[in-house]
Amino acid sequence: MIYLDNAATTKPDEECLKAAAKYLTDKFYNPSALYAEGYNLHLELAAARENILSHIADPEEYSIIITSCGTEADNQAVFCGGRRGNIVTTFGEHAAVFAAAQEAGRRGVEARFAPLNADGSVNTEELLKLVDEKTSLVSVIHVNNETGAINDINAIAKRVKAKNPHTLFHSDGVQAYGKIPFRLCSDVDMYSLSAHKIGALKGTGALIKKKKLVINPYIWGGGQESGLRSGTENVFGIKMLELAADKVYRDIKNTCARISGVRARLSELLDKELFTLISPQSGSPYILTVAAKGVRGETILHMCDDEGLIIGTGSACSSNAAKRHSRVMQACGVGSELIDGVLRLSFCAKTTVEEAEEAARILNKVVRADSEMMK
Amino acid sequence: MIYLDNAATTKPDEECLKAAAKYLTDKFYNPSALYAEGYNLHLELAAARENILSHIADPEEYSIIITSCGTEADNQAVFCGGRRGNIVTTFGEHAAVFAAAQEAGRRGVEARFAPLNADGSVNTEELLKLVDEKTSLVSVIHVNNETGAINDINAIAKRVKAKNPHTLFHSDGVQAYGKIPFRLCSDVDMYSLSAHKIGALKGTGALIKKKKLVINPYIWGGGQESGLRSGTENVFGIKMLELAADKVYRDIKNTCARISGVRARLSELLDKELFTLISPQSGSPYILTVAAKGVRGETILHMCDDEGLIIGTGSACSSNAAKRHSRVMQACGVGSELIDGVLRLSFCAKTTVEEAEEAARILNKVVRADSEMMK
Repeated sequence: MIYLDNAATTKPDEECLKAAAKYLTDKFYNPSALYAEGYNLHLELAAARENILSHIADPEEYSIIITSCGTEADNQAVFCGGRRGNIVTTFGEHAAVFAAAQEAGRRGVEARFAPLNADGSVNTEELLKLVDEKTSLVSVIHVNNETGAINDINAIAKRVKAKNPHTLFHSDGVQAYGKIPFRLCSDVDMYSLSAHKIGALKGTGALIKKKKLVINPYIWGGGQESGLRSGTENVFGIKMLELAADKVYRDIKNTCARISGVRARLSELLDKELFTLISPQSGSPYILTVAAKGVRGETILHMCDDEGLIIGTGSACSSNAAKRHSRVMQACGVGSELIDGVLRLSFCAKTTVEEAEEAARILNKVVRADSEMMK
Repeated sequence: MIYLDNAATTKPDEECLKAAAKYLTDKFYNPSALYAEGYNLHLELAAARENILSHIADPEEYSIIITSCGTEADNQAVFCGGRRGNIVTTFGEHAAVFAAAQEAGRRGVEARFAPLNADGSVNTEELLKLVDEKTSLVSVIHVNNETGAINDINAIAKRVKAKNPHTLFHSDGVQAYGKIPFRLCSDVDMYSLSAHKIGALKGTGALIKKKKLVINPYIWGGGQESGLRSGTENVFGIKMLELAADKVYRDIKNTCARISGVRARLSELLDKELFTLISPQSGSPYILTVAAKGVRGETILHMCDDEGLIIGTGSACSSNAAKRHSRVMQACGVGSELIDGVLRLSFCAKTTVEEAEEAARILNKVVRADSEMMK
């Protein structure tokens, strides 16, 4: 089986699972407990948090709140960061920001959505026009999860701050952390990430924030995570995130270059008569989105599955089948002849060129067969 | 090592870990994905949800929202259930309800707290006096996590509904689910539970709710959990909860009786000159809270740890060391001569009489030694 839906979730890394297994057995304690076994875990978690953070930000300047997922981190950023006036975000956001901003709108904070360029990146000039003296939060996704387009969040944050220095800047980095090399500049106030997109586990995410930034918790209770996220710490999940992040960041530049090669090879081998490229060349090496004319993506997905290839049709994070057409694809201006046939091929650090070649062969075969049937 | 802090967290069940391990390896897919491997997980989760629920409620009448922890479930109940007028709850709540109610108070929904009886149960008459025509939510903990006192939530819910049929009734069942036999009566609208208190994992909880009850999600995004809790489903955690619940409910009455014997034996062997019983006789068999006069609980905890016995001093869920005295103990009226010396001994389904006997020996020895030093 060739698995090319890594933007939806990745297979947990076996080496990390082995190393973290003890947190399910011998080291199962509650890290808030006062006895040595609990307190030692408390110390281990403090070190883990700093490790997870340090790959992309300076621990002197930023701290990290471990959450239960990227979605929760995005919700905390939106609801606790954008409490007044208006929130400016984009049509290219993951639902975790988009739906949260819509809900904030219903609660009396105006939600404003900036349009996208054709590749799924935000139209920065239009975004900036939406920012005014009442903007409490701007949130711009780092790597678009449907096209792989990369927004230059450091540059956008700087321009937002130039327009309104009191505006908080957040970015959803779920498809960027552990995948593309970058560091947060000090204009970025908050940054979300997810563990299960980089070989760690579902059920763990994080919100990185400027140390100086005072925000409310979103989950209230026993005061874990320095009072900013209550609930017994998911030690196994946190350690898995630390270990998986350590592993991917050890060699991130080379891995990124290698996966760029995988993507280029797959893109090159796809039959140009059948497939239209949607992802930008400059996008994340981990995502290749194409559209097959005149076929239904879901049909192709099932036919590929039968041939031993697993692919996506867009964001797997939207479990609402009723939303047939992707909001992001529509905002990119993908036309009606293509929008049903969108396929997302997404990679992990372990995806090989051989897998890409076999995937291209299956995709060409399946789409050609389906197209001919449709004639 | 004898572990008697099971109310803080339990050791994950080895048998369940083995059975669920495949959800970290072969079955790692995203359950929202459309291909067969994802969809099959979607079906497995639907079955798991019904299993978890069916142990305590009728799946025809109730549904279940999987959350990231008991705290999140409590927060959803409080913030999404108590949106108008006032919220009536108790001084005996876990911080997940108590702090959420306080926060609701800051957001303009009045928070009212009912006093406790000496054993930690709520004073029901006083609670009912607080309920009026503006009460949107009443939340009463099922088993008090610091004393083990059991509130008869079905009876209290019935009386609340008699006073105001529009009031929602919620109960935090984190220390009850999987431990004491009961079923929800139809006056209970919402019920929270936690996986890691019954041999499953940190990072999974649930909010059981009446099917007819329309409430908002607390985490917004891709629309998982029937739109009521977004974020990629934590398949491994959910399956662990299902398996652990199946295991404990298989023989819950006998286990409950056996653990009652463990508690009685430990209570009987504790030196009456040194220890005062705080837990009620009629409380949960899983919690025995005592106070040792004239000593500090934390000191005793560390001395026991050195002797191979792990115990608690109260709620381990409060990671805020500044809150030296337990709010619940104060509300129980535990006096100043005892309040520093509170110890919580808590059991799991596997705790043995032999462990209880050895624990009593260590506790008697340690407290006697410390008391003599203090003279």
